[in-house]
Amino acid sequence: MALKMLKNKSPAPPEPCMLTECMAVISGAWAPNVIWSLRAGPRRFSELRADIPPISAKVLSARLSELEKKGVLVRHVKRTSPPSTEYELTPLGAELLPALDAIVQVGHRLKAKF
Amino acid sequence: MALKMLKNKSPAPPEPCMLTECMAVISGAWAPNVIWSLRAGPRRFSELRADIPPISAKVLSARLSELEKKGVLVRHVKRTSPPSTEYELTPLGAELLPALDAIVQVGHRLKAKF
Repeated sequence: MALKMLKNKSPAPPEPCMLTECMAVISGAWAPNVIWSLRAGPRRFSELRADIPPISAKVLSARLSELEKKGVLVRHVKRTSPPSTEYELTPLGAELLPALDAIVQVGHRLKAKF
Repeated sequence: MALKMLKNKSPAPPEPCMLTECMAVISGAWAPNVIWSLRAGPRRFSELRADIPPISAKVLSARLSELEKKGVLVRHVKRTSPPSTEYELTPLGAELLPALDAIVQVGHRLKAKF
């Protein structure tokens, strides 16, 4: 006799934002690293490239425009000479930091144990 | 004159666990959904498949064994008739739940805004 399938007591993932869609906020190669690098304040493109050494200019540029479209960060063009562009976390983007910290904490302990 | 490159004041990602490696704990297609589905207690394979309708048996099986190897969940073989297998979050795996919640919250609000 097949076992009865139990109802899942976990609350359903919030709609209309599917869990997967929401997780997409931090998806994309190096997206968590870009968010992490901006935690102490705005950074320029070349500074971010130096912060995340294996990242290519092409990938960093793609990630920055995606994260900007999603509302995680904003781009400021500053009237310096030469003009410079800075990237800064939005308040909502900054709210991802504790979540990244929590995942890193768990990841760290799992790696130590397994 | 090129702009001076400023030092990044964000703390360096914790070593030896690189941010990317730690994030890998929740990587893999549907991994966050599997973790989410186990939040209220152990589930069997067929129950998890019903919880996450688009997941294939092959992908679910791959994800479960990866998450088991990483220490996020444990597999219990129960002496029911027929014998059944349940998957359950480890205490460390359960610590990922608040992080997933936080990301979902932010993702939800970003989607409402952009």
